[in-house]
Amino acid sequence: MAGGQDMTKAKPIGITMGDPAGVGPEIICKALTEMEDDERAQTVVIGDVHFLQRASALVKADLVFGRAFEDLAEGVVGVVDVPARNREAIRPGAICDHAGELAYRCVEKAVTLAVASDISVIVTAPLNKEALHAAGHKYDGHTGLLAHLTGAPSSFMLLVSDKLATVHVSTHVSLRQATGQATRQRVLETIRAGNAHFKRLGLASPRIAVAGLNPHSGEHGLFGSEEIDAIGPAVEDAQAEKINVVGPIPADTVFHRALKGEFDLVVAQYHDQGHIPCKLIAFDETVNVSLGLPIMRTSVDHGTAFDVAWKGLASHCNMKAAIAYARRMAGLAPAA
Amino acid sequence: MAGGQDMTKAKPIGITMGDPAGVGPEIICKALTEMEDDERAQTVVIGDVHFLQRASALVKADLVFGRAFEDLAEGVVGVVDVPARNREAIRPGAICDHAGELAYRCVEKAVTLAVASDISVIVTAPLNKEALHAAGHKYDGHTGLLAHLTGAPSSFMLLVSDKLATVHVSTHVSLRQATGQATRQRVLETIRAGNAHFKRLGLASPRIAVAGLNPHSGEHGLFGSEEIDAIGPAVEDAQAEKINVVGPIPADTVFHRALKGEFDLVVAQYHDQGHIPCKLIAFDETVNVSLGLPIMRTSVDHGTAFDVAWKGLASHCNMKAAIAYARRMAGLAPAA
Repeated sequence: MAGGQDMTKAKPIGITMGDPAGVGPEIICKALTEMEDDERAQTVVIGDVHFLQRASALVKADLVFGRAFEDLAEGVVGVVDVPARNREAIRPGAICDHAGELAYRCVEKAVTLAVASDISVIVTAPLNKEALHAAGHKYDGHTGLLAHLTGAPSSFMLLVSDKLATVHVSTHVSLRQATGQATRQRVLETIRAGNAHFKRLGLASPRIAVAGLNPHSGEHGLFGSEEIDAIGPAVEDAQAEKINVVGPIPADTVFHRALKGEFDLVVAQYHDQGHIPCKLIAFDETVNVSLGLPIMRTSVDHGTAFDVAWKGLASHCNMKAAIAYARRMAGLAPAA
Repeated sequence: MAGGQDMTKAKPIGITMGDPAGVGPEIICKALTEMEDDERAQTVVIGDVHFLQRASALVKADLVFGRAFEDLAEGVVGVVDVPARNREAIRPGAICDHAGELAYRCVEKAVTLAVASDISVIVTAPLNKEALHAAGHKYDGHTGLLAHLTGAPSSFMLLVSDKLATVHVSTHVSLRQATGQATRQRVLETIRAGNAHFKRLGLASPRIAVAGLNPHSGEHGLFGSEEIDAIGPAVEDAQAEKINVVGPIPADTVFHRALKGEFDLVVAQYHDQGHIPCKLIAFDETVNVSLGLPIMRTSVDHGTAFDVAWKGLASHCNMKAAIAYARRMAGLAPAA
């Protein structure tokens, strides 16, 4: 991806509109407005063009939408139109099965395009889990949905900003269950996924640190043995594969060391262990990236924000960050 | 403590020397050197005056030591002398039962002085757990030792800096065990201890937020039920006692909100949940305070650092912060 690749040959990124009752359409329009023409030409939106036009008017964006891959005039935003089946039923800020269905179909379409290599990286705007369920799609959000649509056996959540990058061994399970998921195999797979990602982005030998699960990394087995039984052996397995990894390092020092520049990536053992430092340091700039899928995907790290949706108030800062990172992954922007 | 109290009447703080083979003596001497005369007059050191003199020479401090509460000449540092029983056996940076014994006796003496109200707040320099155990004192460090010496049934670890304050429901247990310690009773007691502390320091109604245990605070029971069964009810119990507390709030947003000034204190459910944000934001300035004991105590939040001990290299930044916070608790410095 990085280095000598001809960036003009890379495929566009594809942004899914998310739940039309949420902030997705307006933050996409705000982000599109601030793009240079060449960036806009390397972007397609997968959504209902009617909602996009309304959002463009709402945020006074004056965007011109056309058919993706066809209407290639300068400044035109290419849209892969996924029309709502009952547009009138969808109201700003309300949970609605038609909205959930539309959000689902946008993601489904994006995956089809990504698998066919028509788009390079999917950027997802937020969807609403309850609306998704109301539409009969019983997934835990994008993560489960994407795994299903791509047939991936597992995936790994990376949170990344310019300041800190963290990939998670487990995410949306109870803390009690998370302690059981820090197995030698899963920790090793997480290290590999993180290493592969940063090598793709051009780092020759990403410097990875693995956090311990227990306080003080268990203090030699005094408070928990997962470091001895699973995490330490996984680090050794990865080192045997020539991955530049150290650990386990106590969680209350490893993020501080990474922030000071010692590591490119921290492997966190559970959701909050990685989310607390990333969101504390770069609340609005932290992007969510799915690793381990056969397609590439970045996402905003916030929800549909129904309370402020369609008022033009939602910040598009996180969407811009998700797009910028997707462009780096796609080879449309310099990786470093 | 705060407001109208005559600060000149408050008792001195007492600094324990910690393990003499570690960095304690030198960081104490560095901190003493930077004190104003009146601050030094409000400070006593509990330790072996021989080691203190050597440390003073090492860091070129030219300190003059005298007997605490007796030699009151200006600039003299009052020492409660606790002589080592086999001084020659103690070597810089080495684990030694005589060093562990001396460190133990300094803490024991400090507790006696605090219980007798001869000193107001104990500030502890680091001790070495292995040396303590070698001397026959099988405690998990200061925490267990102080609980034993004061007969306290429980205590609570507060980490505090100018940026963030966090009190912990549990600390030195495995993460698996920690999930079982977030009980309604223990969470309530932790809220009460934190509230009492900040009221003591002059806040009329400390604004407290309680973190959830599970990701997204369990998302309505989807990933863990501790928020529904224990944490939420504990918050309601505390509200019924007129404590200004909210929660549970997901851990990946509560610290960000506290850092922005919304809360005075966050209740963390386990060691790393509180330690990760505090040490990330203020690594060198974060002080460890024991709540729930019949005496008051602050501590540096680092260890004996045997690798750099007695080389004059150790930073005294954290010791200065521990002393400054102790002075506020003692009423020797303005609380706010």
